[in-house]
Amino acid sequence: MEKDPQNKGTMHEMDGVKPPKSTDASSINRIKLSRNKLPGTGEFIQGILEGNRAFLSRAITLIESTNVKHQEQAAEIVTACLPHANNSVRIGITGVPGVGKSTFIEAFGKHLTGLGKKVAVLAIDPSSSIGKGSILGDKTRMEALVKDENAFIRPSPSGDSLGGVAQKTREAIVLCEAAGFDTIIIETIGVGQSETAVHSMVDFFLLLKLAGAGDELQGIKRGIIEMADAIVINKADGDNIRAAKLAKAEFARALHLYPIKESTWQPKVTTCSALFGESVADVWHIIEEYLSLTKGSSYFEQKRRAQNKYWLLKTINQQLKDQFYSHPRVKKELEKQLELIEKDKVTPFEAAKVLLALSIK
Amino acid sequence: MEKDPQNKGTMHEMDGVKPPKSTDASSINRIKLSRNKLPGTGEFIQGILEGNRAFLSRAITLIESTNVKHQEQAAEIVTACLPHANNSVRIGITGVPGVGKSTFIEAFGKHLTGLGKKVAVLAIDPSSSIGKGSILGDKTRMEALVKDENAFIRPSPSGDSLGGVAQKTREAIVLCEAAGFDTIIIETIGVGQSETAVHSMVDFFLLLKLAGAGDELQGIKRGIIEMADAIVINKADGDNIRAAKLAKAEFARALHLYPIKESTWQPKVTTCSALFGESVADVWHIIEEYLSLTKGSSYFEQKRRAQNKYWLLKTINQQLKDQFYSHPRVKKELEKQLELIEKDKVTPFEAAKVLLALSIK
Repeated sequence: MEKDPQNKGTMHEMDGVKPPKSTDASSINRIKLSRNKLPGTGEFIQGILEGNRAFLSRAITLIESTNVKHQEQAAEIVTACLPHANNSVRIGITGVPGVGKSTFIEAFGKHLTGLGKKVAVLAIDPSSSIGKGSILGDKTRMEALVKDENAFIRPSPSGDSLGGVAQKTREAIVLCEAAGFDTIIIETIGVGQSETAVHSMVDFFLLLKLAGAGDELQGIKRGIIEMADAIVINKADGDNIRAAKLAKAEFARALHLYPIKESTWQPKVTTCSALFGESVADVWHIIEEYLSLTKGSSYFEQKRRAQNKYWLLKTINQQLKDQFYSHPRVKKELEKQLELIEKDKVTPFEAAKVLLALSIK
Repeated sequence: MEKDPQNKGTMHEMDGVKPPKSTDASSINRIKLSRNKLPGTGEFIQGILEGNRAFLSRAITLIESTNVKHQEQAAEIVTACLPHANNSVRIGITGVPGVGKSTFIEAFGKHLTGLGKKVAVLAIDPSSSIGKGSILGDKTRMEALVKDENAFIRPSPSGDSLGGVAQKTREAIVLCEAAGFDTIIIETIGVGQSETAVHSMVDFFLLLKLAGAGDELQGIKRGIIEMADAIVINKADGDNIRAAKLAKAEFARALHLYPIKESTWQPKVTTCSALFGESVADVWHIIEEYLSLTKGSSYFEQKRRAQNKYWLLKTINQQLKDQFYSHPRVKKELEKQLELIEKDKVTPFEAAKVLLALSIK
């Protein structure tokens, strides 16, 4: 068995299982990951394109590294993989803690690999680091999927800004796709703006919910419902079935109240029991229906292009702000101007003028 | 009668009616607006603080001017008025064309002046200029309010960016408040991001709706419902009463599905017939209830402070972007990078790095 000291958390991915693409017997010339030495860029690229999960995993570790040399190598690898990416469906899954995300992803992922798909599961959780592993970290929760040779599971990258985490995840998607994974699942918990970030990098956005008493939509962060392409009421089993059906009806009614989406897709609601593996197939049917609609209308491609542009502008705008507000003179003056605004001595517009003049000097 | 060649659209405001504050007889020393000469900054300030609508109107024209000297004078006037502003309730009103906004504002405004209030009506409409006057321009629609000496009506300022228009409107609010207007109504039609802009400068946000057949919430721009503190179903008269009541019930149900607002205010729904002046008082009662809640909890003040900070950061961020993207080298390279992204040659993040490096050089 191969060991990767840099990457303890994801050792199972390298447990000597065959890489996803190695269905032929002629794997003699296939590349092997060295135990200790960092592979060269060319080796990385070859390994990833051959579907070698050990290389894939190591490359994602490079993406996540704060070492500048690693980052440069990672950027080269991602750029080289880019023309081989894109052939996938990217599914975002969100839901509050306790809704059964891991159980759902395990059942859903197993269903998909059963259909012959290759499934990569990534996570965005700006509140955690790999060490803490608040989502996907405890992979014993996905035992069956972890052992599945057509699945690849990766905990959320660490990072101190959502922008950084989002960039790493976007790049990891590229590598997974280049490695032959055709179904990418991005998990997130509803922390900060993480849903918006995930929504902006997936084709289909799924909200997991539980049936409960009273107002079903209470406690859901604003805007999440509007982003959802499907709402799945999980734990629809045993005594919970009736409540789940009621919740389904309520969500269906609520969804109808929203304006029609640009995709013309009418979001669907369904129930399922991930624990018992029930109705997980229905969720995939909904996604297939969505793909058929949006690929037919070429909205699918349009959306991906728009997402690329969104990330370009988003990254630039964030950097412009970071540069400006980290300027020592600006920092000091900002406090002063905020105080003046508070005391009605200046308008926000005058204060902005003063601050902007500072950064030009 | 006084004439102001710069300001044809708002001549009625200078029709020699008494300024709002002149309840005493000793108005001998009050300032008078010169027919042709632009008043000095001190005269402007005195005139506004005395509640002279002619000065107020002329000062708003200065705010709207693209002339740099005018803008400088306007900034001085606004800053001087700032400590005298803030004593008002600011109400945003939106609704699609045909919903009866003008009729409603006329009936509502007359009701408020009847209660002894001084009402200023401003408008934000980034799609129009004063010349076109798509909202508030045709003031014959508000005949009674126009003639009311305790009302001040001002069409939307022209401007090519919503940011610019919003800034002008925010500054006009300051001047109106300094002139003694205690109820500021900001009208907007649902164009672009104008609702968000208005929402970010008012205390209370009111959505006007019509009863219709079928899904009442269809056709409303995303997020508007979430912003509304009250929804008023207009034209609840004659044959329309039953439909209006049904619509009210549907909206009330929908509003309950949303998460609780930070203000803890539960948005209200009511019906009214602006045309027959019916139930307009109810709308004011709702606003009074809101004011009582939010002033009691000091949320009212908190929100205004947060809005000031919002406009400071918003203005800075917009300027940073404007500066960056107007850079000739950036403009040229942006097109190139977008093409590379489209062809999967670079990631959005790599492209951003290239563009940001350009502006530093």
